[in-house]
Amino acid sequence: MPVETKGVCAPKGFMASGIHCGLSKNPNRKELSLLYSMEPCVAAGVTTTNVVCAAPVQVTRQHLLSGSAQAIICNSMNANACTANGMSVAKQTCEAAAEALCIKPEDVLVASTGVIGQELDLKPIQNGIPLLIDGLADKGCKNFAEGILTTDTSTKEAMATFFIGDKEVTIGAAAKGSGMIHPNMATMLGFIATDVAIAVPLLQKALKSIVNDTFNMISVDGDTSTNDMVLILANGCSQCEKITQEDENYQLFYNALLEVCKKLAIAIAKDGEGATRLLTCHVTGGQNEIDCKKLAKSIISSSLLKAAMFGKDANWGRVLCAAGYSGAKFNPDDVDINFISEYGKVLVCKSGQGVLFDEDLAAKVLNANEISIELSIGTSTHEATAWGCDLTYDYVKINGAYRT
Amino acid sequence: MPVETKGVCAPKGFMASGIHCGLSKNPNRKELSLLYSMEPCVAAGVTTTNVVCAAPVQVTRQHLLSGSAQAIICNSMNANACTANGMSVAKQTCEAAAEALCIKPEDVLVASTGVIGQELDLKPIQNGIPLLIDGLADKGCKNFAEGILTTDTSTKEAMATFFIGDKEVTIGAAAKGSGMIHPNMATMLGFIATDVAIAVPLLQKALKSIVNDTFNMISVDGDTSTNDMVLILANGCSQCEKITQEDENYQLFYNALLEVCKKLAIAIAKDGEGATRLLTCHVTGGQNEIDCKKLAKSIISSSLLKAAMFGKDANWGRVLCAAGYSGAKFNPDDVDINFISEYGKVLVCKSGQGVLFDEDLAAKVLNANEISIELSIGTSTHEATAWGCDLTYDYVKINGAYRT
Repeated sequence: MPVETKGVCAPKGFMASGIHCGLSKNPNRKELSLLYSMEPCVAAGVTTTNVVCAAPVQVTRQHLLSGSAQAIICNSMNANACTANGMSVAKQTCEAAAEALCIKPEDVLVASTGVIGQELDLKPIQNGIPLLIDGLADKGCKNFAEGILTTDTSTKEAMATFFIGDKEVTIGAAAKGSGMIHPNMATMLGFIATDVAIAVPLLQKALKSIVNDTFNMISVDGDTSTNDMVLILANGCSQCEKITQEDENYQLFYNALLEVCKKLAIAIAKDGEGATRLLTCHVTGGQNEIDCKKLAKSIISSSLLKAAMFGKDANWGRVLCAAGYSGAKFNPDDVDINFISEYGKVLVCKSGQGVLFDEDLAAKVLNANEISIELSIGTSTHEATAWGCDLTYDYVKINGAYRT
Repeated sequence: MPVETKGVCAPKGFMASGIHCGLSKNPNRKELSLLYSMEPCVAAGVTTTNVVCAAPVQVTRQHLLSGSAQAIICNSMNANACTANGMSVAKQTCEAAAEALCIKPEDVLVASTGVIGQELDLKPIQNGIPLLIDGLADKGCKNFAEGILTTDTSTKEAMATFFIGDKEVTIGAAAKGSGMIHPNMATMLGFIATDVAIAVPLLQKALKSIVNDTFNMISVDGDTSTNDMVLILANGCSQCEKITQEDENYQLFYNALLEVCKKLAIAIAKDGEGATRLLTCHVTGGQNEIDCKKLAKSIISSSLLKAAMFGKDANWGRVLCAAGYSGAKFNPDDVDINFISEYGKVLVCKSGQGVLFDEDLAAKVLNANEISIELSIGTSTHEATAWGCDLTYDYVKINGAYRT
C-alpha cells in the first residue's frame, strides 16, 4: 500500500485534505484539515474531562448525540476556547463545511487546537473551505495529518487491516499532540476512519475502552487539555457483515483499533515537547489492573524521573518514590525494577532495595532513544503500560514562549 | 534580637549544632545537624503520605507515639530510604545521639534527606556525634539550618514571638526543600522549636491544621517525597501558663505558628530547584475552601504555566486549563484572572473569556521575582493560597544529574 494512503483515507470511501488558510502567518504551514466520507457514517467520540472545555468540544458533543456524522473539520493555531464568540465560530465552521459538502451541519464534527483565549477568526476558515474541498483526495492523508499539528515535530498516522469473512476491513487514523498532554478519559486530537460496518453502541464501547488503555496512558506534562477529543467514523464501505454484538468479528475490530490507537499514543509520547527519549513503564504482577495503571502513569509523569532520564541517570529511587505517591496499593518490599533498552537490561532494585549494579552498563542502557522501566510488584497476573518522555531544556524553551 | 538566634534556638532552652561529618566529600559542606532542648519537650509531627517511606520516618513515627522528645538529629546527602540496613542505621543514629546526650533513644527524633536507595553509612554519623554535641550552642541556628540542606541555595529559618500573660513565648524554625516538593499531609523537612507550654493533643492539632494551609500548599515539581516530615518540640521554658484548651492563648500560639510555617513554606517554593520566580496563586470567591485549595494548587503545579512564567508570557489560558482539570467545582464563566507583581496589575480574563490587555504592561508585570496569580471564581467568601515557582532550564540541569 503506498505511503500516501496510510492514514485517515486508507479505509474505503474516505477522502481527506489539509491546506493553509491564513490562520498562520507562515504560508507553508497548513492549519485547516477536512476528513470526508462519501457515505454517511456511524460516529463515536470521547472528549476532554476538563471542566473548562472549548467550544468545538461542546459542538461536537451535541453533533455526536445522533450517533452519525459524515465529516470532521479541524483547525490548528487556535483552540477556540474561552472566548466570547467561540460557540458561534464553531457552529458557523460546521455550517460552512456542511453547505459546501451538501450535508447537514449536524453531520460535521469540529475540532480546534492551539492557543487558548484568543478569538478564532472565522473568515480564513470560511474563505479556505472551497480550497479545502477542492483538495479532497483519497491520497489526502498526509495533508490532513499536517493541518492538525501544533508544536508536533512530525505527523502521526496509523492503520490496520483485518478480515470479516472475505471482506478486508481497514482502519486509518491521524493524531496530534505534543504538549498539554495528560489525557483523562480522552486525549489530544485523534481522528479515526474505518470502513467497517458496526452498530453505534459497539463503536462507542470499543473506542472508550481502547482510549483508556492507550491515549489515557500517556503523559507529557501532566496538563489535561481543554480541547482533547478522539473521534471515529465508520462508513461500512468495506461491505463487510455488520457488527451488532460482541462476537468474534467485534474482537477482530477491537484488536485492530487497539493497535492503531496504541501506535498513535506512543507517537504522541515520543514527540512530547522537547523530548529526546520515549519512556515506557510496564508494571507487572499486580493484583488488579487499576493499581497497575496508577503506578505506571505516576512513574511516567514524574518530573524528577523525566529529568533523570534526560540526564541518563539510573536514579531508580525516583521510580519508587513516584510509585509510592501514586495512590496504588502495593508492598514496596515486593518491588523489582529493571531499566531496559536495545543496549541491554539492568536490575537496579530488588525487593524494594537497591542492588549493586554496573553504572557503565546503566549509562549505556539509558543512552537509547527508547527506554523501558519495568516494575514487578508481585506474583499476580495483572499488568499495565504507560508511555511518556523525558523532561528537557527544550520543553522549557518551547513553553516559555509559546503564545508570543 | 541578633541574627544568629533567629532560627531553631530562638526559643528559650534550645541549642543547636551542624557539622561536616564526612557523608559529603566536600569538607566545607555540613551534613549533620542536631537540635537539643535542655528540658524534656512535648512533641508532635506530620510525616509523608508516600507509601514508600524512609526508615527515619518510620522510626520517628514510633518515637512520636509517646508525645515527648528532647532532640532531633538530621543528616543530609542520603535519604536512608529503600535500603536493607535503613531501619538499623536510623535506630543506631538515635541510640548514639541519646547516649551522648544522656537521654533515652526514644526521645530522639531522626530525619534524613538526600539520595534514595543508597546505603547510609553509620560510621561518619557515629564518629561525628561528639563534634556535633561539642558544637551545641544557643547561637547554633545557622549551622543547624545549613546541615539539613540538599540542593537548596539558601537556609530557611523563621521565628515569631507573642505573649501569654506577661511571658514572652518564642517559636523558631528551620526547613529545607528545593526539589521533590509536592507535600501531601506533610512536607519536606521542617523543624520547629518553641518554649510554649502546651498539651500534646493541642500541639498536634495546631501543627496538622497549619501544615495543611502552608507546607501542603506548595509545589515545586509534583513529586511527594519519601522523607517528608515536620516536627515540633515545645519545652515550656518560657514559663508561660500551659495551654490546655482552645482558648485565646491557643489562638495566639496558632497564629504565631502559622506565621512561621507560612514563611518557611514560601521560602521553599521560592528556592525551588532552578527557580527564578516565586509564584503565588490566590483563589477567592469560592463556595468552600477545599475547591479553592484544589484550584490554587493545580494552577501552581502546571508545568505549562510554570514554563510560561519563566518566559514572562501572560499565557492565562494555561491558568484556566489547570483550573479546569483540578477536580474543583466551579463555573468557568465566573472566572476573572489578574497577574499582579510589584510592577503592576493586569486583568487578562474576565468572566471566563480573554480580554484585550496591554502586552507591554503584562511583560513588565511578569518581569518581577514574585508574581501573584489572582483568580476570582465567584461572590462567595472562601479562599485559598498556594505557592510555587517557575520551570526553568536549571531545573532540568539539576535533576538530569543529581545522583551522579
